[in-house]
Amino acid sequence: MSSIPYKIYLEENEIPKTWYNIRANMPQQHAPMLNPGTMKPATKEEISAIFCEELARQELDETTENIPIPEPIRDFYKMYRPSPLVRAYCLEQELKTPAKIFYKFEGSNTSGSHKLNSAAAQVYYAKEQGVKGLATETGAGQWGTALSMACAFYQMPLYVFMVKNSAEQKPYRKAVMETFGANVTKSPSDTTEIGRKILLENPGTGGSLGCAISEAIEFAVTHEGYKYTLGSVLDQVLLHQSVIGLEVKKAMEKYSLYPDIIIGCAGGGSNLGGLVSPFVRDKIKKEKNPYIIAVEPASCPTMTRGRYAYDFCDTGRITPLAKMYTLGSGFMPAPNHAGGLRYHGMSPILSKLYHDGFIDEARSAVQTDVFEAAVKFARCEGILPAPESAHAIRAAIDESEKCKQTGEEKIIVFGLSGTGYFDMAAYESYHSGKMTDYVPTDEELQKGFDSLPKVPGNA
Amino acid sequence: MSSIPYKIYLEENEIPKTWYNIRANMPQQHAPMLNPGTMKPATKEEISAIFCEELARQELDETTENIPIPEPIRDFYKMYRPSPLVRAYCLEQELKTPAKIFYKFEGSNTSGSHKLNSAAAQVYYAKEQGVKGLATETGAGQWGTALSMACAFYQMPLYVFMVKNSAEQKPYRKAVMETFGANVTKSPSDTTEIGRKILLENPGTGGSLGCAISEAIEFAVTHEGYKYTLGSVLDQVLLHQSVIGLEVKKAMEKYSLYPDIIIGCAGGGSNLGGLVSPFVRDKIKKEKNPYIIAVEPASCPTMTRGRYAYDFCDTGRITPLAKMYTLGSGFMPAPNHAGGLRYHGMSPILSKLYHDGFIDEARSAVQTDVFEAAVKFARCEGILPAPESAHAIRAAIDESEKCKQTGEEKIIVFGLSGTGYFDMAAYESYHSGKMTDYVPTDEELQKGFDSLPKVPGNA
Repeated sequence: MSSIPYKIYLEENEIPKTWYNIRANMPQQHAPMLNPGTMKPATKEEISAIFCEELARQELDETTENIPIPEPIRDFYKMYRPSPLVRAYCLEQELKTPAKIFYKFEGSNTSGSHKLNSAAAQVYYAKEQGVKGLATETGAGQWGTALSMACAFYQMPLYVFMVKNSAEQKPYRKAVMETFGANVTKSPSDTTEIGRKILLENPGTGGSLGCAISEAIEFAVTHEGYKYTLGSVLDQVLLHQSVIGLEVKKAMEKYSLYPDIIIGCAGGGSNLGGLVSPFVRDKIKKEKNPYIIAVEPASCPTMTRGRYAYDFCDTGRITPLAKMYTLGSGFMPAPNHAGGLRYHGMSPILSKLYHDGFIDEARSAVQTDVFEAAVKFARCEGILPAPESAHAIRAAIDESEKCKQTGEEKIIVFGLSGTGYFDMAAYESYHSGKMTDYVPTDEELQKGFDSLPKVPGNA
Repeated sequence: MSSIPYKIYLEENEIPKTWYNIRANMPQQHAPMLNPGTMKPATKEEISAIFCEELARQELDETTENIPIPEPIRDFYKMYRPSPLVRAYCLEQELKTPAKIFYKFEGSNTSGSHKLNSAAAQVYYAKEQGVKGLATETGAGQWGTALSMACAFYQMPLYVFMVKNSAEQKPYRKAVMETFGANVTKSPSDTTEIGRKILLENPGTGGSLGCAISEAIEFAVTHEGYKYTLGSVLDQVLLHQSVIGLEVKKAMEKYSLYPDIIIGCAGGGSNLGGLVSPFVRDKIKKEKNPYIIAVEPASCPTMTRGRYAYDFCDTGRITPLAKMYTLGSGFMPAPNHAGGLRYHGMSPILSKLYHDGFIDEARSAVQTDVFEAAVKFARCEGILPAPESAHAIRAAIDESEKCKQTGEEKIIVFGLSGTGYFDMAAYESYHSGKMTDYVPTDEELQKGFDSLPKVPGNA
């Protein structure tokens, strides 16, 4: 085995030519989305009312293992992919661990995160179909920024509903989106019926991803020629994000490496799913058995303390119902600084894989522990991580410490999904000692569970 | 010639093994720095009082063409280098120009700019010599951030004097430096004698790079075991930054390309000098004759409207005198948003090269024109440029437009020295139409020239 460089770069022609659709290999499919009116599986026609045709098709595709990436999307990817797989030599040294730590860095583009992988695809298909404009929501701002960039590239009008709390914590995120030409509205807003309703019921609310989803969908369906887009949770998003894991696999193969442990932060599942799905494939096929860990904030413990049940994807209860790990669409997450992980639900694919044991472990971390890991990582590796990504760093450091105890030279790979340039208020709060750790009580969680819809099979 | 990819990456082992010292090839040396007390050339001993030994040696080396880069510095470089040379296919398409536009992107590291190239070297040498801590100044914050990162890596205490105006425009820059462990003080401050003096004379001043330099030097010389570092202007900095131009050359050679036009933004000269010096070499040796353009802000027109004269490098008038293009150390630049270009002087090497005709042209741009170019670039290329770097984009677009008129397929290379994540207040000001263009009058410039020291030969 030749010596491993700091960064394993792939060539431009090694960017994957197909996305990997894990559903084609899942022993059991996740339960279908349900139309909450009829309680019957949502049809392609119903889904196409919200999303554009090809994305609706991808959303329902359970059989095509490798879906070709259209050439124009690959050209877009070439602007910032392949992304580097970095050997964390300096962090290893600092930790004095025998473990070999790698991270897949998805933050080397202006959007600052992996979100661009799906944004590029979603806007391309919308443009192809002649869609007149798009609407979406954004929490931490990574998805909104990525979609703004893609919309600027394809000259597609975009309306972004940004969670009010986040917009106020991160005013400059808004300016970035505007630089790329997007129209940004704080959510909940009085520009939609659902927004006005939420404001009436919760005056002074800081909003949530669930609220903003409701508003963006309403905007799309009430504006002629507009479609809605979503940056996480959906099967189509996990499909597009599979380029992350495919590149990791290819880069590691160059040095005859295979991970023992794979770690991703878990919000709606876009980054985690993209990173792990090509490896979960190996577990399903019993070719390899890497240990897969999902890390979520203790303040929004969807997988570790949630229910596996049918639920709405939004607060306004207008989306189809998805079977997933959820805290209930009525759960209002505390203003943890990892806004991108502050979501009541979880990708139906990942939920099913976790339920069936193909994701080995979900764990949660409190935010001061997460920022401690973030600062340690930054000082060693010279990258300022997003608070979301720092959840994965926390677990990677903890696993490396275990290797130090046992002397095992495990190969640990984690997803560094993005950078924290717009999260400095959070870092300031950590440095000043003002950051607090919030963990919801069982009673608080129960209130969220009480909001679960009455669907046969829900506990 | 094989088809040119979006990004030309070099291999890790193609990171330059030596820095290029252009002084070894200059037909005439620039005039030596003078001790303002004796008016005699500053000796190595005098320079070593401020800088560490090896850097003082490099500062005075006029003969060694290729100076080996120590292995540990190359290892540091491997964390973020080689940086990509990007073909701006999308911008070319938008401009409908026959020109081939390339940019060397130095913003793919947390510091967000090229400054890390010299920071890595300066901290390494300080560590080797057993220096106890470092002091420096920062304007826009790019140098302070880069030095903080390098100091975190080498576990070296750091005190940063940050121009007050910039610190207030960009509070989060401070938080980034603190994340990397630096101590940050707004300048002018009451922690130094010179700071107190400046505050007394100019109460309410927003500071300047020249003030902050004075304070940082005072801090270093009054603290046992401390040394001072500077991120631009100095010959040693241009030496370290030569990795930029060397990589550009090597990357272009892979596709048998050579630039017709090379463009860099010009502040103190660190990015411009690093980018162009390997190409100026070819001009000196009459091997090639690329057209080299320096772009500066119209609000701080050092090369286009300054004097070529001996001047202090700082406002407090405590540094040695350097022969350079200058607006006078008493010139207080307007708060243009390109803080990194807001400096009264210019690298003595570049000043001499410009004076002798090896840099073909200096031009200035007003900031609204610069931001117009920045936004156009961002929307096409998906990178959010620093306002400083956007000066080069402006000129690259203008040159491409000329090619469109003449039909010439010129190869244009410009330096994209950094990203603008911390400059969103400036973008907001541009978007809202509130940004104004300030150009100093001749009378205002005259006040700066009146501050020039009385040195034989100064006009």
